[in-house]
Amino acid sequence: MKRVYNFSAGPSMLPQEVLEKAASELVNYKEAGMSVMEMSHRSKDFSDIINDAENILRDIMHIPNNYKVLFLQGGGSSQFAMIPLNLFKGSKKADFIVTGSWSKKAVSEAKKYGTVNVLASSEEDTFSYIPKVATDNYTADADYFHITANNTIYGTRYTADSLPKTGDVPLVADLSSCILSEAYDVSKFGIIYAGAQKNIGPSGVTIVIIREDLIGHAMDITPTMFDYKIHADNDSLYNTPPTYGIYMAKLMFEWVAAKGGVEKLQEINENKANLLYNAIDSSELFSNPVAKEDRSLMNVTFVTGNDELDNKFVAEAKAKGLVNLKGHRSVGGMRASIYNAMPYEGVEALVTFMKDFEANNK
Amino acid sequence: MKRVYNFSAGPSMLPQEVLEKAASELVNYKEAGMSVMEMSHRSKDFSDIINDAENILRDIMHIPNNYKVLFLQGGGSSQFAMIPLNLFKGSKKADFIVTGSWSKKAVSEAKKYGTVNVLASSEEDTFSYIPKVATDNYTADADYFHITANNTIYGTRYTADSLPKTGDVPLVADLSSCILSEAYDVSKFGIIYAGAQKNIGPSGVTIVIIREDLIGHAMDITPTMFDYKIHADNDSLYNTPPTYGIYMAKLMFEWVAAKGGVEKLQEINENKANLLYNAIDSSELFSNPVAKEDRSLMNVTFVTGNDELDNKFVAEAKAKGLVNLKGHRSVGGMRASIYNAMPYEGVEALVTFMKDFEANNK
Repeated sequence: MKRVYNFSAGPSMLPQEVLEKAASELVNYKEAGMSVMEMSHRSKDFSDIINDAENILRDIMHIPNNYKVLFLQGGGSSQFAMIPLNLFKGSKKADFIVTGSWSKKAVSEAKKYGTVNVLASSEEDTFSYIPKVATDNYTADADYFHITANNTIYGTRYTADSLPKTGDVPLVADLSSCILSEAYDVSKFGIIYAGAQKNIGPSGVTIVIIREDLIGHAMDITPTMFDYKIHADNDSLYNTPPTYGIYMAKLMFEWVAAKGGVEKLQEINENKANLLYNAIDSSELFSNPVAKEDRSLMNVTFVTGNDELDNKFVAEAKAKGLVNLKGHRSVGGMRASIYNAMPYEGVEALVTFMKDFEANNK
Repeated sequence: MKRVYNFSAGPSMLPQEVLEKAASELVNYKEAGMSVMEMSHRSKDFSDIINDAENILRDIMHIPNNYKVLFLQGGGSSQFAMIPLNLFKGSKKADFIVTGSWSKKAVSEAKKYGTVNVLASSEEDTFSYIPKVATDNYTADADYFHITANNTIYGTRYTADSLPKTGDVPLVADLSSCILSEAYDVSKFGIIYAGAQKNIGPSGVTIVIIREDLIGHAMDITPTMFDYKIHADNDSLYNTPPTYGIYMAKLMFEWVAAKGGVEKLQEINENKANLLYNAIDSSELFSNPVAKEDRSLMNVTFVTGNDELDNKFVAEAKAKGLVNLKGHRSVGGMRASIYNAMPYEGVEALVTFMKDFEANNK
């Protein structure tokens, strides 16, 4: 069976060379005489793996020394609670900009533990743009300010330049679907968090990059496993971490470095996205509903305006090895998720198919 | 590099044939054209995997229909909080028997959310036995009764016959290091939980088997991801689960079934443990500090009484491909973890080495 071009929103495509390396050392890792899956998390071999993973990530993201890198479990959904439980230490107020269903879940979880101010939401327009809010409207004494940097379902994003300028209020950002896809200045954030299953590796690992002064303020009701301090003090080894997922993340970080780093991948990602958006914009059949300045680099949505034709497109594409192009059920249409591991050739194949499909369905 | 006999307490040895199967389909799973790691958790292929995993587990553990099987993240350490947050719904009291450091962690976490009665502890004797407590001393209106069924560090266990008879109070048991090693009657428990990294697969998956009437009572302060109802209502797919770990668990459950089921593995495990305990008991050099009736089937501890000799034993064993025999730092000496995947031949090799070592160190 030939491998397909997998446009899944997550878990999603991984580079074939990374998978082949993992397969080659799955039964026997180097000189260990065992699989990475069988290693004690306190062994020298695994310590090397998790330390390498952290160091390479620090390098490719240029993470400042006053930030901790944590390898956790539970995905972004756990962070929605962990963040307020740890950051509501002053006014117990937080600002949110709501740009999709993940933002909404983050809001409802934070409301359990403090006061949430939703400064703006684009929900009435099916989250087709990123609301711009004047800094005067920010809550001056908020404990944090939360955004979803890339909205997987709707195909919108904050660019590195359009991030809210929150001053002394820590900016907390869900980068699940855009981490490592373009260069961000980590020092502008209080916390960056990301589920692994888009640009980092298999699901089951959550990366948290947290400024040190935000650690150590958990509420009394916080479960130990939801206290950043526990994980920071124990270098992510308080309990048994998801060892194999961390190993896969290490392989992916090495792959990013070998590709030339995040800056180089951003260039490739911009080329991929431009190719696809240009094809949509020049088409008479397909259109993209998102405000141009807010278009995602990672998740490109498009529709024909005809549900039946959309379904036909998805089915015919699948038959050609272009799979998982169906849009999220809440918005319909199509979505091509073109994370780091999707090669330029995959997007070319999609664009070629789109042109053929348009010609055949006039 | 030859594979070793890995006596690690966890993560720990997996069957070579399971690892080889995983390696063979890592890049390309069956007809999917992609790795399991790359599959959407909502895809047909992954649905089949998680459904198969659940069904085979139900079969090999004879799980009654009024119990849900959940595939979660965060390990036993997360369950220590999740259990009180969901079960403290009446008197907010719980009984605990403390048989090791994991029990102690469960106690301190439960204390955050209710009243904990420690009925007994063997801590003063370095947890070398399981305290027996008369049922008269149980708290009649407790919301639950918690035990650690097997104590990895100290090498003690409750047998299926020595479980506390808690009547209407739900018995909650940490089976992390003994699940699938011997037959338990699931209907005697309110909740069984287990981290995967001993008998089930790689770390990062937590199995929870919960009686349905215990679902749906979470406290208001409970993070959504710590609410059993959320996961039960969504068949463990509320958020992205650790897909690859669940796939590995499925392969392990299939392996158990192919071996003849839990009952057959119990027989093999008893033979392995008898071989090793008999070697210790008939030795003049080695001794096992645990009360005989409470000896673990999975973790066998032994000492020479001389730290230097213990270290020499561990180092020479390692050179012979018998690795990770060092005891936990809190008790010293040696520990052989002989989970399901450790073949009888591995224990034979260890016993042979022990005899040689004793002869050479009179």
